[in-house]
Amino acid sequence: KKTFNIAVIAGDGIGKEVMPEGLRVLDAAAKRFGIALQYTHIEWASCDYYAAHGKMMPDDWKAQLSRMDAIYFGAIGWPDKVPDHISLWGSLLKFRREFDQYINLRPARLFEGVPCPLANRKAGDIDFMIVRENTEGEYTAVGGVMYEGTEREVVLQQAVFSRHGTDRVLKFAFDLARQRERKHVTVATKSNGIAVSMPWWDGRAAEIAAGFKDVTWDKQHIDALTARFVLQPQRFDVVVASNLFGDILSDLGPACTGTLGLAPSANLNPERKFPSLFEPVHGSAPDIYGRNIANPIGMIWSGALMLDFLDQSGTAGRQAHDAILAAIQQVLHDGPHTADLGGKASTTELGKAIAAAV
Amino acid sequence: KKTFNIAVIAGDGIGKEVMPEGLRVLDAAAKRFGIALQYTHIEWASCDYYAAHGKMMPDDWKAQLSRMDAIYFGAIGWPDKVPDHISLWGSLLKFRREFDQYINLRPARLFEGVPCPLANRKAGDIDFMIVRENTEGEYTAVGGVMYEGTEREVVLQQAVFSRHGTDRVLKFAFDLARQRERKHVTVATKSNGIAVSMPWWDGRAAEIAAGFKDVTWDKQHIDALTARFVLQPQRFDVVVASNLFGDILSDLGPACTGTLGLAPSANLNPERKFPSLFEPVHGSAPDIYGRNIANPIGMIWSGALMLDFLDQSGTAGRQAHDAILAAIQQVLHDGPHTADLGGKASTTELGKAIAAAV
Ligand SMILES: CC(C)[C@H](C(=O)O)[C@@H](O)C(=O)O
Ligand SMILES: CC(C)[C@H](C(=O)O)[C@@H](O)C(=O)O
Repeated sequence: KKTFNIAVIAGDGIGKEVMPEGLRVLDAAAKRFGIALQYTHIEWASCDYYAAHGKMMPDDWKAQLSRMDAIYFGAIGWPDKVPDHISLWGSLLKFRREFDQYINLRPARLFEGVPCPLANRKAGDIDFMIVRENTEGEYTAVGGVMYEGTEREVVLQQAVFSRHGTDRVLKFAFDLARQRERKHVTVATKSNGIAVSMPWWDGRAAEIAAGFKDVTWDKQHIDALTARFVLQPQRFDVVVASNLFGDILSDLGPACTGTLGLAPSANLNPERKFPSLFEPVHGSAPDIYGRNIANPIGMIWSGALMLDFLDQSGTAGRQAHDAILAAIQQVLHDGPHTADLGGKASTTELGKAIAAAV
Repeated sequence: KKTFNIAVIAGDGIGKEVMPEGLRVLDAAAKRFGIALQYTHIEWASCDYYAAHGKMMPDDWKAQLSRMDAIYFGAIGWPDKVPDHISLWGSLLKFRREFDQYINLRPARLFEGVPCPLANRKAGDIDFMIVRENTEGEYTAVGGVMYEGTEREVVLQQAVFSRHGTDRVLKFAFDLARQRERKHVTVATKSNGIAVSMPWWDGRAAEIAAGFKDVTWDKQHIDALTARFVLQPQRFDVVVASNLFGDILSDLGPACTGTLGLAPSANLNPERKFPSLFEPVHGSAPDIYGRNIANPIGMIWSGALMLDFLDQSGTAGRQAHDAILAAIQQVLHDGPHTADLGGKASTTELGKAIAAAV
């Protein structure tokens, strides 16, 4: 039986608080379904490491992580110690790129027991999947400052889209929609304003869509799309978006379902050439760190996605995933609840309750 | 007494339906407060004009519009006839740039009588102002396609930020906050992901903020910010953002207050060297055009902003603005309502009701 090697990177802030609960639930599920997990706890890739070493990671980070089957990741960032673009480009964004995790999968789903910030929505009304491009697009360090330090200062920021990178994420989204009941893809764009890349992106979408006759699709400008997330969230099935637009939609979508604390994500290299990475959508939240009140469900659900992805052979991974999700749903329904959902339970209590339910 | 020359551009789709109601209410307010308005109706700057002439506007458009005191603008775009980037870059986006309308002011406010899509929010809870940079940033036609038509195709899309353009919009926002009760500015950013322009933008914000000791401020990444619009909209006072982020936030903000149909905007050249432009936030909405059901309030409120901006000397402009806003509030409260607010009234009925209330 294969043992899966998992790199465990808690990172900064509440990443350190939610990670133990993620592991607690993973252990419970692994035990129940006979999955063998081997953890390697990694202390680098954190702002504390940066403070001590002047860099986010050791030089051989890639060799160390390449040996792993997956990376289980908390959150990184502590802007008072390290500017965000340095900590993130020095860790998470490097993983996504150098391990070619070009799909960032992020579900938005409204559960029973979670007060919805939208009026008159009940569990089941919101249930869609955001497929975010995760390696290129608007996220680049390409560009520079001209006439620096003068009144005439001009900053150029390059976005870079490749056909290779665009087609594969579009295809993934259409493929995913094909497996779902409603079989609909919404393509985020902004071709009326962003005049080079986005009209081209629309063209790629039309060409890929033509290969999926059984999937319906439409195209919406990102501004109108954010409005529709609030006004008609029941309309969405699969939403595919560029790196930046996907980033925005995958905070907004989960917010519309109650709290960012629930939202998981899977940063996938579908070919399994490199380890994939599983992390909650929320960040390190320095403002609430240290009080043990963070909601660990995003971390725990990310663990479920990891088990499902890792185990290709049999059914154990999928069963473990479903059991964890059922446990999450049970605890959301019956309590205990963390502060973001109006409860008083600690991070630890929630983790224990979900592990027990598994 | 000065007569204000107004260029009236209805544009496409529901722009043509809401414009007459905007003018109806403007006329009523102008009459009551003794403001002299002279309209010049312009048929170009529409997709129909494009269909006939192969361009959106005649070559002397700038000379024609430069003579005007303001542009009262409906909506442009009809993607089945003309791709959006052609129609918009050939009209609205040219006006914003060539007339240096570098401030796009967009209020988000929850009124009585408007069903809020957010749970448990009442009139008064949401009342903030979005200040959007309107001439540069992510909206450019700078860039190009390399290896065109091949598998290796790569698209470069340049964003361009100037210190001149950035500082002036930040200053405008801080100045505006200073005049408001809460005196707080939220600066939208994405410096953790967009690694050249956004860290630089943060630096400009810090420098400008240092000159406004009486104004508090914070900085939020655009992804988290969209989530907070839904989860804690009462927290915002003035939100300042780049062109793209401002575009997104100013659809999302009004959506959180019930409907895009209400939202107005003022594209300002504060120095009055060029005409400013006033338009609803909603677009041309081809899907509902022709049924006379569009909500004209965004158009009407934009007219109120126009009168307020035009009349610098006396108090008539401000009085007219306040009277129109009071009339809007009264009709939102007592009805009639258009379909977007669950009513059955036509665009025309709503315009007449508001004009009568003025
Ligand atoms: C039509 C489009 C180009 C425009 C924009 O993106 O600026 C619109 O969405 C707006 O907000 O005024
Ligand atoms: C931390 C940040 C760089 C990251 C992103 O923008 O991708 C985060 O917001 C996310 O969504 O995973």
